[in-house]
Amino acid sequence: MNVQTERLYLSESHDLSLRFETVRAHSVALAEPLSEEDCCVQSMPDASPIKWHLAHTTWFFETFILERFESDFQPYHPAFRVLFNSYYNGIGDKHARAQRGLLTRPPFADVLNYRREVDARMLAVLRNPLLTDVQVELGNLLELGLQHEQQHQELMMTDVLHLLSCNPLKPAYTEMPRLVAKPSAELQWLTFNGGVVQIGHDDQGFCFDNEMPVHRQFLEPYALASRLVTNREYLAFVESGAYGNPAVWLSEGWDWVQAQQLTHPLYWQQCGDGDAATWHAFSLHGLQALNLDAAVTHIAYFEADAYARWAGARLPTEAEWEHAAMLALPSDDAQKDCMQFFGNCWQWTASSYSAYPGYATAAGALGEYNGKFMSNQYVLRGSSCVTPDGHSRATYRNFFPATARWQFSGIRLAR
Amino acid sequence: MNVQTERLYLSESHDLSLRFETVRAHSVALAEPLSEEDCCVQSMPDASPIKWHLAHTTWFFETFILERFESDFQPYHPAFRVLFNSYYNGIGDKHARAQRGLLTRPPFADVLNYRREVDARMLAVLRNPLLTDVQVELGNLLELGLQHEQQHQELMMTDVLHLLSCNPLKPAYTEMPRLVAKPSAELQWLTFNGGVVQIGHDDQGFCFDNEMPVHRQFLEPYALASRLVTNREYLAFVESGAYGNPAVWLSEGWDWVQAQQLTHPLYWQQCGDGDAATWHAFSLHGLQALNLDAAVTHIAYFEADAYARWAGARLPTEAEWEHAAMLALPSDDAQKDCMQFFGNCWQWTASSYSAYPGYATAAGALGEYNGKFMSNQYVLRGSSCVTPDGHSRATYRNFFPATARWQFSGIRLAR
Amino acid sequence: MNVQTERLYLSESHDLSLRFETVRAHSVALAEPLSEEDCCVQSMPDASPIKWHLAHTTWFFETFILERFESDFQPYHPAFRVLFNSYYNGIGDKHARAQRGLLTRPPFADVLNYRREVDARMLAVLRNPLLTDVQVELGNLLELGLQHEQQHQELMMTDVLHLLSCNPLKPAYTEMPRLVAKPSAELQWLTFNGGVVQIGHDDQGFCFDNEMPVHRQFLEPYALASRLVTNREYLAFVESGAYGNPAVWLSEGWDWVQAQQLTHPLYWQQCGDGDAATWHAFSLHGLQALNLDAAVTHIAYFEADAYARWAGARLPTEAEWEHAAMLALPSDDAQKDCMQFFGNCWQWTASSYSAYPGYATAAGALGEYNGKFMSNQYVLRGSSCVTPDGHSRATYRNFFPATARWQFSGIRLAR
Amino acid sequence: MNVQTERLYLSESHDLSLRFETVRAHSVALAEPLSEEDCCVQSMPDASPIKWHLAHTTWFFETFILERFESDFQPYHPAFRVLFNSYYNGIGDKHARAQRGLLTRPPFADVLNYRREVDARMLAVLRNPLLTDVQVELGNLLELGLQHEQQHQELMMTDVLHLLSCNPLKPAYTEMPRLVAKPSAELQWLTFNGGVVQIGHDDQGFCFDNEMPVHRQFLEPYALASRLVTNREYLAFVESGAYGNPAVWLSEGWDWVQAQQLTHPLYWQQCGDGDAATWHAFSLHGLQALNLDAAVTHIAYFEADAYARWAGARLPTEAEWEHAAMLALPSDDAQKDCMQFFGNCWQWTASSYSAYPGYATAAGALGEYNGKFMSNQYVLRGSSCVTPDGHSRATYRNFFPATARWQFSGIRLAR
Repeated sequence: MNVQTERLYLSESHDLSLRFETVRAHSVALAEPLSEEDCCVQSMPDASPIKWHLAHTTWFFETFILERFESDFQPYHPAFRVLFNSYYNGIGDKHARAQRGLLTRPPFADVLNYRREVDARMLAVLRNPLLTDVQVELGNLLELGLQHEQQHQELMMTDVLHLLSCNPLKPAYTEMPRLVAKPSAELQWLTFNGGVVQIGHDDQGFCFDNEMPVHRQFLEPYALASRLVTNREYLAFVESGAYGNPAVWLSEGWDWVQAQQLTHPLYWQQCGDGDAATWHAFSLHGLQALNLDAAVTHIAYFEADAYARWAGARLPTEAEWEHAAMLALPSDDAQKDCMQFFGNCWQWTASSYSAYPGYATAAGALGEYNGKFMSNQYVLRGSSCVTPDGHSRATYRNFFPATARWQFSGIRLAR
Repeated sequence: MNVQTERLYLSESHDLSLRFETVRAHSVALAEPLSEEDCCVQSMPDASPIKWHLAHTTWFFETFILERFESDFQPYHPAFRVLFNSYYNGIGDKHARAQRGLLTRPPFADVLNYRREVDARMLAVLRNPLLTDVQVELGNLLELGLQHEQQHQELMMTDVLHLLSCNPLKPAYTEMPRLVAKPSAELQWLTFNGGVVQIGHDDQGFCFDNEMPVHRQFLEPYALASRLVTNREYLAFVESGAYGNPAVWLSEGWDWVQAQQLTHPLYWQQCGDGDAATWHAFSLHGLQALNLDAAVTHIAYFEADAYARWAGARLPTEAEWEHAAMLALPSDDAQKDCMQFFGNCWQWTASSYSAYPGYATAAGALGEYNGKFMSNQYVLRGSSCVTPDGHSRATYRNFFPATARWQFSGIRLAR
Repeated sequence: MNVQTERLYLSESHDLSLRFETVRAHSVALAEPLSEEDCCVQSMPDASPIKWHLAHTTWFFETFILERFESDFQPYHPAFRVLFNSYYNGIGDKHARAQRGLLTRPPFADVLNYRREVDARMLAVLRNPLLTDVQVELGNLLELGLQHEQQHQELMMTDVLHLLSCNPLKPAYTEMPRLVAKPSAELQWLTFNGGVVQIGHDDQGFCFDNEMPVHRQFLEPYALASRLVTNREYLAFVESGAYGNPAVWLSEGWDWVQAQQLTHPLYWQQCGDGDAATWHAFSLHGLQALNLDAAVTHIAYFEADAYARWAGARLPTEAEWEHAAMLALPSDDAQKDCMQFFGNCWQWTASSYSAYPGYATAAGALGEYNGKFMSNQYVLRGSSCVTPDGHSRATYRNFFPATARWQFSGIRLAR
Repeated sequence: MNVQTERLYLSESHDLSLRFETVRAHSVALAEPLSEEDCCVQSMPDASPIKWHLAHTTWFFETFILERFESDFQPYHPAFRVLFNSYYNGIGDKHARAQRGLLTRPPFADVLNYRREVDARMLAVLRNPLLTDVQVELGNLLELGLQHEQQHQELMMTDVLHLLSCNPLKPAYTEMPRLVAKPSAELQWLTFNGGVVQIGHDDQGFCFDNEMPVHRQFLEPYALASRLVTNREYLAFVESGAYGNPAVWLSEGWDWVQAQQLTHPLYWQQCGDGDAATWHAFSLHGLQALNLDAAVTHIAYFEADAYARWAGARLPTEAEWEHAAMLALPSDDAQKDCMQFFGNCWQWTASSYSAYPGYATAAGALGEYNGKFMSNQYVLRGSSCVTPDGHSRATYRNFFPATARWQFSGIRLAR
């Protein structure tokens, strides 16, 4: 989070309030197709229940804004400070992550009520004329809270997909959209000269602290694929016997494939027997025949890396990706879409998640937002089909461990 | 299950139907104080969700009775045969036990509907005059299904207690009953001469297969405590430092105590700090001050055994317990209650769960009901405060592993 | 250990010394075919290095006899009290069991020197005329130490067999003896009337504390197989697909078979491919063609139980076994051998290891010898081909967990 | 390994032979102070037995040189191809890493004989005039084998140190050298302008493949500490309570510290009680009072990172380190030593181990040497007190997981 800036991102209280209400309402809308049971259960330690997401994002506003800007602050419920703290040691104790799914209480209705009360109190703060002198700081914290909520909106979709995939009834989150698959475009190699390039966020508008400061990197000349790897292409990798061939895997990836007995992407499965077997993939729309023209997704870093090696290519570094996306961006939106930089799936890079030169964390508990996770994770760039509108940019650094598969994560090749 | 008998336990169709409806309704009533969320979640692999209990007990009737006695049997839902099979390999695949809590679908309302439809079809079978010639077999299977459901009624209470205990909000299942604790009676030693005694069920009325056949055992003279060990007595054990003293534990129990870092019974906790700390226990009525006069409960075999050793006594064998209970039973109900054989908590015995001489399992999948669990478990005798009425008898053999603590299990001393 | 007795087992100092030296020398002789490397390594936590066995048996005499009866006792090495304590909490700290194989120091030669010094000091104590008034107690402790050492002599053989089996070079402990396999006798069923029988050791001569006191048990009529199950018979079980059929296993046994992916006994392996594949078994004589007429061995309780169920029989209780062996013993040694009660392999019984009625442990650390292991283990009766001479009797109770396979353990059927 | 080069690193057969014999003899000399038992045991899966190191380095020459250049190649022992293969899937099966310590056979003497025979055959190959036309390739493979052996010489020291540290007797590998600790120099910050710098090996002389190709990187201005962090400084970190303070740790590091209950570096321990307690460190010379002026060593990445954060600094990137070392190198050897770039301990960098732009692996099994480990490891630069002479250079990239502590690894600060 960029807390050093002196600008207020949203200058008008009216606009602020409207944006706040819009983002907050979207989270609740995402839970609409689900039952209270769906919203309560945790399918694995990495995922969280929908109810927990709805409460935690509210906790964020209560803890970092209301507690500070309300003169007569009283917590909504004293136990919530611990129950819905995700990982901020600076705030105090926290409920164990792996046990979030045991919280059948507070009931779902109480969490909605928690949201309503915090929302009302937030709007009062935003309209409070006495807070004029701190409006920059307040505005920054508000924006951080909204961006944080949008991150959780994506996680709500990845986590509910995982939960539903564990159910033998294979229920759909929503009905299938009427999409007609069009053939994927032929892969082309876009070439870049490299040299000393500027990387990172220039502090014009919101960004997370890990995107800063803007700095220089040197890039050797490189080429980037004009589109993502498709299911068709990845299926060829599967059918080549790659999941049984150590030569295409990193050593640690090979150990993982063997220990987990993996033979295909997370949500793929074969339906039918023998020659009649056909590949399907579980999705938010239930179990569907594998769309060969769509981008392969729900892929671990180890799988992305192995595919690239098998294909005689490599994964791009995050600087290569960002430089290319920056060049593509201003000129032509259609071109950008065509290249699938955004809105399809996150793209694994070869870059381990680490601090930019000169990186500094915020003071206090908010300093735990990003920096403390900078080990043994890989950066993903772009955005996915479940990333909220307005929540993607070329400098955005998403990150997950090399074995994470339940995100909307895919592959763009480089060489 | 006693399937060899030629008697029909309940001779009248009307009585049969009434008993069926009564037992079935009780299961649903037990879920009444709970939300759908409470009923969906699984707090540990040993426990099951309430919704799963409600469905599995229904599955039992559908699979073992409707499938056999309905001429035009159609399953309620084809997937339920796998989803709600607990452990019968003879029936086919089963949903993994540790993942029962992931079944947010079917929703709670569907499970209630499943119960209603199976109940209606069961009643039709019971009233079918064409089944006269198989009524003994049908009656036996019906009785087994009802006894099975009563076992799950107790498990529903133990499992929901565990779930609620995991919640930092410490919610109560029901309000506290207005009980006034009366001082526990002074412990007396009841002596028995032993000799060759008859053990096991004589096949007059229902019993499970593991209670048969009736047979002889030789007992050396022994003495049994006139009541259960109280919280006051167990607290003295705790305060003596017993959880840190290997001399009072079995070797395996000591390893377990150290690995789990145990210092007191499962649901005990100290509230307050320093000298002001007081012992409380979590219960179906929420967190309550420890009732020192009540029987200690939610105790593992290893704890029961260690307490007995520390107290200079031992646990009774199951034959000693049964012989004493049989002697106490016919004469005087008040005496029986006074001795706490039934209705308070299950009582660990020193006996490993094994087959009686001449034990035979039923044919088919029902043969898996009891016999295949006869290893590395210990027998508990009696019944508990959450055992359904009419579901206890002196020959009943309950069994759990030596580390199980979430049952209503306590201690009766012997020497 | 029978410490209550007032008899001295070995009345003459000279005999005592001779017996002491003979037993002690045998342990060193067992290590003769091995290298220092062989003697140092621990192949799994359940097994111990040969060097550790040689040191621990010496520690037993030093700790329980020299420390008590030497007036000017000085430990051989102060660190050995901890290093070579197996499990006696009453003695103090102990080196972690799983790390016994890390003790490359003291070197093997030092352990031999430790043995020589303790032996010399032991002999001096045995010859000390001033100890006349405690000679009963001293004699009992000496006998316990020698019986203890004989137990470890068997463990040395089971542990070195396991170590060598882990080596792809499949080295033999010794050359193959020139044994000609003779066809196994036809299995006959020996019948017994049962009734009230006497079980346990009558305290004439040495026994361990767990064999006492002598007491009565009631046995229903039963039959026992006249010989052990052979490799030929067990192979039929394997080839029937039993390792893939849940119906023949205890529930816990089936989980174990699946988790460990077991398909045959521990030391069996198939050599060659396809139709030319032949079964071999690894032994102290290296890898040998499976002797179909020999008794199957290195079998877990779960395997023995499953075999018995598959064969339409069951395992005997330990009382049934002991009663039969007692009847067979006095009359005719040849008959006894013929029935394979002793000297072939230990025989799993259906009895969980527990205390006899009236069982009492010794005071102090020696009370930890047997009693604290009375949970979740099964009793084996008889003795094996690696049991030292003079270390078997009809009342002897060996015990291991239901999954232990590295002992010389086999199957005798009952019904 | 640089196999593309057309130079022969060692132009004369005589020199080649001499160098070969010298490096090979050094490995055996390192085992000199150890017993056969010391050389056989494996103290943890990450470490290997000394005997295995001696055999594996021999296997490397046999497999990659003799098998290729001997016209009548016969393996020394057919089983060794599997037994002593470390991780080369391209060669075939390999003995499980965690079970290297179970190989009591072949005995130590056989491994020495294996070395002697392979050495003799290697010398014959080196002197073979018929191999002139392939001498570049042969020379490259020879050099790779020797560098490989030198890497294992360092590992022999780290692994034997770990083994001896596990022994409560705390034996020394060698006697303490008579070193007088001199006060550590005052820490100074050396500043560098950065800009576009050259990184990687220029292919003049031997390097591993992961050091190539030489390429450009852009460095922002930075400063590097003039010496390593001392035990005195790290002790202040320990005594500040840092091991209990989540604020100074990466999130994953904090989880690790808590799970492992760490409170100090791997080989530190306090001797004595209360106020009289003094810090000691276990070393190749046994347990010694902590030398406060020496560089702290046997530190994990997580510890190095936490110390840097606590000290208000950071770890250098590997490019920063290399650029600084390159600038320091040519001018003045004394200056280099003074700055402790080499010969003291390896220095954790903030850089995840990954491929340089344009990195290409060798063909065949040797392509597995480095590249497949490029995930979830961190680069260390410099060399340590147990790195063989002639085996260090400014471009050398050592790498270990963030939790590895048993290497001679320390901390140089940057900012």
